This record gives sequence, structure tokens and C-alpha cells, in this order.
Amino acid sequence: MINPFFNNHGPFQIDKILELVDINNKDLNYKGHIKDIRDLVTADANCITFFHSKKYKELVKHTKASFCITTKSLENDLPKTCMPISVENVLIATAKVTEKFYPEAVIDNFDNNTQYIDKTNFKEIVSYGKNVLIGSNVKIGKNCNIGNNSIIEKNVQIGDNCYIGSNSIIRNSLIKNNVSILDNCVIGKKGFGFFPDKFSNIKYPHIGLVIIEENSEIGCGATIDRGSMSNTVIGKNTYLDNQIHIAHNVKIGNNSIIAGQVGIAGSTTIGNNVKIGGQAGISGHLKIGNNVEIAGGSGVIKNIPDNSKVMGYPAKNIREFLRENK
Amino acid sequence: MINPFFNNHGPFQIDKILELVDINNKDLNYKGHIKDIRDLVTADANCITFFHSKKYKELVKHTKASFCITTKSLENDLPKTCMPISVENVLIATAKVTEKFYPEAVIDNFDNNTQYIDKTNFKEIVSYGKNVLIGSNVKIGKNCNIGNNSIIEKNVQIGDNCYIGSNSIIRNSLIKNNVSILDNCVIGKKGFGFFPDKFSNIKYPHIGLVIIEENSEIGCGATIDRGSMSNTVIGKNTYLDNQIHIAHNVKIGNNSIIAGQVGIAGSTTIGNNVKIGGQAGISGHLKIGNNVEIAGGSGVIKNIPDNSKVMGYPAKNIREFLRENK
Amino acid sequence: MINPFFNNHGPFQIDKILELVDINNKDLNYKGHIKDIRDLVTADANCITFFHSKKYKELVKHTKASFCITTKSLENDLPKTCMPISVENVLIATAKVTEKFYPEAVIDNFDNNTQYIDKTNFKEIVSYGKNVLIGSNVKIGKNCNIGNNSIIEKNVQIGDNCYIGSNSIIRNSLIKNNVSILDNCVIGKKGFGFFPDKFSNIKYPHIGLVIIEENSEIGCGATIDRGSMSNTVIGKNTYLDNQIHIAHNVKIGNNSIIAGQVGIAGSTTIGNNVKIGGQAGISGHLKIGNNVEIAGGSGVIKNIPDNSKVMGYPAKNIREFLRENK
Repeated sequence: MINPFFNNHGPFQIDKILELVDINNKDLNYKGHIKDIRDLVTADANCITFFHSKKYKELVKHTKASFCITTKSLENDLPKTCMPISVENVLIATAKVTEKFYPEAVIDNFDNNTQYIDKTNFKEIVSYGKNVLIGSNVKIGKNCNIGNNSIIEKNVQIGDNCYIGSNSIIRNSLIKNNVSILDNCVIGKKGFGFFPDKFSNIKYPHIGLVIIEENSEIGCGATIDRGSMSNTVIGKNTYLDNQIHIAHNVKIGNNSIIAGQVGIAGSTTIGNNVKIGGQAGISGHLKIGNNVEIAGGSGVIKNIPDNSKVMGYPAKNIREFLRENK
Repeated sequence: MINPFFNNHGPFQIDKILELVDINNKDLNYKGHIKDIRDLVTADANCITFFHSKKYKELVKHTKASFCITTKSLENDLPKTCMPISVENVLIATAKVTEKFYPEAVIDNFDNNTQYIDKTNFKEIVSYGKNVLIGSNVKIGKNCNIGNNSIIEKNVQIGDNCYIGSNSIIRNSLIKNNVSILDNCVIGKKGFGFFPDKFSNIKYPHIGLVIIEENSEIGCGATIDRGSMSNTVIGKNTYLDNQIHIAHNVKIGNNSIIAGQVGIAGSTTIGNNVKIGGQAGISGHLKIGNNVEIAGGSGVIKNIPDNSKVMGYPAKNIREFLRENK
Repeated sequence: MINPFFNNHGPFQIDKILELVDINNKDLNYKGHIKDIRDLVTADANCITFFHSKKYKELVKHTKASFCITTKSLENDLPKTCMPISVENVLIATAKVTEKFYPEAVIDNFDNNTQYIDKTNFKEIVSYGKNVLIGSNVKIGKNCNIGNNSIIEKNVQIGDNCYIGSNSIIRNSLIKNNVSILDNCVIGKKGFGFFPDKFSNIKYPHIGLVIIEENSEIGCGATIDRGSMSNTVIGKNTYLDNQIHIAHNVKIGNNSIIAGQVGIAGSTTIGNNVKIGGQAGISGHLKIGNNVEIAGGSGVIKNIPDNSKVMGYPAKNIREFLRENK
């Protein structure tokens, strides 16, 4: 997907990119232009990608990227069509290159170009409360409601028949048809991604979006952060209860049900028809299969295969857990 | 209690009700009108109620309802004065009948009839901040404060000497005297109740209220959902810390103290003088007795008798837990 | 530190103070004036302090306070320069004396003297959104941003280059340079401190502040309560993710990283370079050392020494936990 919201300042000559990560191209003699930085899956030829953990070994095999920021120890996993750019810290190098392509994605200040909705053309097509604000690059479909004090900041597309509650803030998001987002939510802010540094941490550019597929509902007080390199996705007809936190790059499938106060850490993937009980927490970079049930209060720290029911901290087979904890 | 907020469109002839749940009355020959749908406890003669789980066996014995939506396997538990209407899925049938009586309780959009408080008569009796909105069917007592940007939507009664913070939203709620509701709360939205359906879940009508009894305090960022059939109740002089989630139909007693980030799932009852530590979670449909202490971080998955102290996940006797976890 | 925000109504004669706690000075013959009430560490000569738990035995040895509210059983731990005022309930007596010095710190209503920022001098120096409100006794440095609908209530100092998101509320706080506070936060409200009482709990005066040191970031939906007697402090370059709750008197060191939905109970101290995973909870009155790592979902119920890695509930050595929970 072409990034619909953040402006790509590329292409850049490979030399310019290598300079950023302190690599001298004289010895390597790489050539050509790089048009974009993308993740392993969505990158195609003339893109640069990154590979920083064995966890993504299966994905890297099939990447179509021409270049990959990685480490000496991982570079042998790359396909022959992808040239390694080996650095010490993959994520810091990736952040620098991302910022080169998308300088606007580092700063995440509020959109100070918003206008009251009754001073925009949306006043004709949207049913809205008091004090609703609309930023630049916003589209809203037919038959939508937006509650009092809500702020649709820049880079938002809302489909038909959507309901946005009061006091909610949305930016950098694609909201499909028939979606409800209730009160006091913050959707699409940058994720909690940065590189620790002794005096002042280095913030990571977040060029991903939040995508909420059709027929879904997001409860009150949710925070759903946009992705860093890929997107954060809530599937079709998936319902989230109140006070849920979804971190950057998380992908949740269709027809899932997530109870109150659940937290899902960054880059975890959740399948279809998944049920998660209240206050459960799921660590980052995990894969939760289809038809999985996670009991309330569980702490999930490893992948869960399809059709499993788990409970406990760390979460295990629910029957085993209950037998051990009579 | 007569429902003070949602308009009852009944009574309806029993035939009309049976049609809704695909039952042909010719064989059964039920007669008469049904005036309301209520839960097992509050239903009286000429009401219809529902009974879907053995858990409520004790309650069903004493119901005064004339009709009860239930299943074949449960219908023998009904008293003779109550005629069973046996269906496959009790809750879906109940939702359909409820919607017939209370069609306005399904939709839960923001109240787009709110007005700025300084354009209402409340400006004379309330001390208020900037941008306060008041909906229809609102009553406010003497000596109340309402902070900036707060929205008192339709169907709210607030007693004397109440304090509502800033950025809070209240609807479908009875707030008694001397209650404080702090900033960023959402009180009285519909609960997380629906019937999963492959393409688009069916939302459940919520005709209950939130009732907050006198002298209580609700911390910042709370979400307290209104009941589906019965009410959600916070007892007298009960204090809730910040970021607490109370689901639909929960009933909390008097003089209880609930620390930050606690979550209580739907239809659970909590006694008087209960103390719940931070981040504890309590599953749905449980009964927690009087004078119970639940340690912070606990996960409660079964009933707890009066005067118990519990800890752990699943929560057990606190001494036992601490002995096992030295 | 002289309290910059709450007005000290002292000094008071010792007799006036003793009267408050039902002690007759005729027998004791204490003399002189008391200028302030402070905690054990910050009190100096002519101050009154309080000492209610053996936990603070080391601190009490070095207090410079002239008087100390304590119990008969603890009074022998006081240094000779500090005269005991022994009562039955130290905290209730302390609350009464604190209220005498700082009567404005008991009530915590919204600041109804706020003005729209464009009617203040701040409009020249701050970049701001719509509907921003500013209370009395507010200072804001250079190059700051304040988002839509945010409320800077009374008693706030904000340094240079700060970013305040939308829909946030700040009061009684010192925000140093280069701090970001994202959307929907509530910073500086009174803590969850009160004395249970059968009909109506007695609220505790909170004369402390929230101090957020330079270069820190506070995620969306945070609640950070101000201190009761001492301050609540977030150290330099410390980052908090979304939906975090920090209770009164908590002190967090520098360069720490705290993931989403963490809760830290009152009066706990956290060191430098600490990492806390998502949804972890930390009980009150604990000391967590430097360089500690607490795994997501953990429940910490005792002190943790420097350089430890812990996991579980109750949290223990992470290797031990993982070995036992394969």
C-alpha cells in the first residue's frame, strides 16, 4: 500500500542512505536509487527494508526489497536479490533512514490547522455535536455521527454509517464503514517507540496507520497507536470493550471479542474469532492463532496455536491451569 | 422501579411477543397482555422475564412474572404461576422482546439535543465551567459544580451538593446527593452486550441505569456502563480510585473502597465494606460477600463468602496464597 | 522546598495544634510556634511532622522537626530534639493539622477562574489549539504547544519546549523543560487518600505537587495524582506509555521506561534506569532499586534491590519464575 498520509520525500541515491548510517560506499559500490522504506512483507524492488531478529526469519526469505538494514550475524538469511547493509544497531539505523523518507512522521504534535466543523463542508453531510474539530486531509462518508468535543485531526478517512462518540481524538487512521468508536478514545497517535538515550531518548518515526475494518466497535477510553513501519489493524466485526490499549503494529483479525482493560503490546498478531477476557495482557511480537480463547486476567508470553483455550500467567492450557489451581 | 428514562412502548398482546421469537400461539393458547419486560426479581404479574442459567435457580423460584423466556431444559424450575416460553437462545429472544418494549435503548448515539448550560435554567443554580452541555430530561439539585467541557446528556438526575469534574460524560444515570465524579469519566453508556454474528454482531438493548448512591466518589477516567435489564449500582459512601471499569449490571454495596485500575465484569454483585486492591479483576456473574478484602492484582473467578481475605489468580485465601508464594 | 502553590496559614501556637488533636497542653507544657507541617525528611526546626509506621524508622532518626505526631509505641524512635505528640490515629491527627495549615488543599474542585487562552497574555508565547483554558497562578515557558480542549488549571508551571496534547487537564504541577504530556491525561489532582468513616469518608488534604522532570514523556490517558505531604515525581528522561496510573507520593527516577497500563500505588519509590513491562502493578510504600527490570503483568509486593530482574505475582527472580513456569 502506498502510504496515503505521510509524504515520501524519496527517492534517494543509495549513497545518501549509507551516509546516514555511517557506511562508506566506496568499498561496497552499491548503486541506484531507493524509492521507499517498508517492512519485509510490503517492500518491493528498489525499496529498503530492515531485519533485526531471528523471529522474522521466515518473512525475510520472501522479501522483494533490494536492500536490507541488518546485522553481520543475520545477513546470511537474506535472499540473494536483497543486499545487506550491516550495522550495529538495526533499529536506530532504520529510524534514521525512515526519518529521511518521512520527516513529518517524527513529530506528533496536535494538528493546529483544525477548524470547527460548522466552518467546513462536512456540516452538510455529518450529524455532529458541539465543538467538533476537523483537520486537513480528512474524508467522511455518508450518514456519520460525531459527538461533542471530538477532534478528527489530519489524515483521517471515515467510511459510511460510522459513529464517533464524544471527547475522542482520531488521526492518521482509516475507519471503514459501519464502525463505532465510543467516547474518550485516542486513535492513531504514534506508538511508544524510541531508542533509550542517557539524556534524551530518540523518538522513532511512525509512518504506519490505524486501520479499523468495517462493522467494528471500539469502547470508551481506548488508545490504539498507529504503526511504526506497518499498520495497526482491527479486523472486521471485531468488538473492543472499554479502556483497552492496542500498541503499534498490532493486527487483530475478524469477529474477535476483547473485554475491558485488555492490553496488547507492539507488533503482536491476533487471529479471527478470538475471545480475550478482561484485563488479559499479551506481550509484543507474538502470534495468537484463530479461534483462540484467552481467559480474563491471563498474561500471554508466547505464541498460541489455533483453537487453543488458555489461562494463567504465563498463560497455559486452561484445563491444566484449572486443575493445578483448584 | 418504573424505568424513569426509557419509554415503555407496551403493553403488547402475548401473540405479538410470541411472533417475535418464532413461536406459534395456536397450540399453546396463551392469553392476555404483557406490560413490561423485567428481570426475575423486579418482574411482577403481567410481566415477561427471562431465565437462561442454573445460576439464577434460587431467584427464579420467587419470580412474580407471568411469562418467562427460557429453554426446555430449564422450564421445570419455574413456579407454576409463570408460563415458560421455551426458545433455543434465551438471550437473543430476550433482546428481541426488549427491543419491542424499548426501541430507543438499542441506539446509544450521543445526545444531539444538548445545549450550552448558560442557555438553560441551570445557569442559575449550578456552578459551572466553560463549555458545559446539558441534554434533555436532566435534573440537577442544589449546590452542584460541573467542570469544563463536561456533558450531562439526556436522562440524568443529579442530587444536591454533587461535584462533576471536567471532560466527563454522564447519561442515563441517577446520581444521589453529595457524590463526586472526577475528570474524564464516562458514566451510563450501554454495556458491552451483544450477540456475536458472523458479519455484524447484534447489539443488545440496555434499559438499565447507573445509580450512584449518596456520598460516593468516582475517580478520574472511570467507565461505568448502565445495566442491560437491571441497573448498575454503586452503593453509599463507596470510593473508586482512578481508571476503574465497572461493567453493566454490577452492584457494589456501601462503604466499599476500590483502588486504581480495578475491573469488574458484568452482573457481579459486591457486598458492603469491601476493599479491593489496585488492578484486581473480578469475573462476571459472581457474588462477593460483605467485609471481603481482595488483594491488589488478584483475579477473582468464583464467589467469595463474607469476611474473607483473598489474593492471587485465581484468588484464594490470602494466608494460604502467601504461604505458598514465599 | 517552600510549597509554591498552597498557602500556608501558619505559624500557629503549639496550644492551637494540640487542641485539634484533643491533647491538653497543661501537663505537657510545650512551648512556641509551629511554622509548617512537613514530612520527616523536609521538616526543619519549628516544623511538625508525623511518624506512623516502623517502615520509616531510618528516616525518623534524622528528622529536624521540633514536633512529631506519632503513637505511644513509636515515640521512643524519635531523636531527642523532636517532641512526640502521641495520639491514637496518627493519620487522622495529621490530616486535621494539615488542614489547619492548608485549608485550600482539602477541596479539589475544578478551577472556575480559568479563562480562554486567547484572552490571556499567553496567546503571544504559546502555540495553542481551540478551547484551551488557563487558570490562575500559571507560568508557561518558551516554545510550548497546548492542544485542543486542554485545561491548565491553577498552580501550574510549565518550562520551555513542552508539548501538552489535547483534552488533558493539569493542576498543581511543575512541568520542567522538554516534557511531553499526551492526550486525555489528568495530572495533579488530589490522591486517593481519605479516612474511612461509616457515613461519609473524611478526605485528606493533599498539599504536595506533581513534578515532571525534563525530557520526560507521559502517554495518553495517564492519571498522575499529586502528593499528600510530599510530592509525586517523574524523573528526567523517563517515558510512560498509555493508560498509566501513578498514585500520590510516588517517586520515579531518571531514564526509566514504563509500558502501557502499569499502576503504581501510593508512596512507592522507583529508581533510575528501571524498565516496567505492560500491566505490571506495584504495591504502595515500596522501594524499587536502580536498574531493575519488572516483567509485564507482574505484581510487586515487596522491595526490589538494585539490578534485579523480576517476574510473576508476587514478583520474584525472573529466571526462577520462568523455570517454575515452563
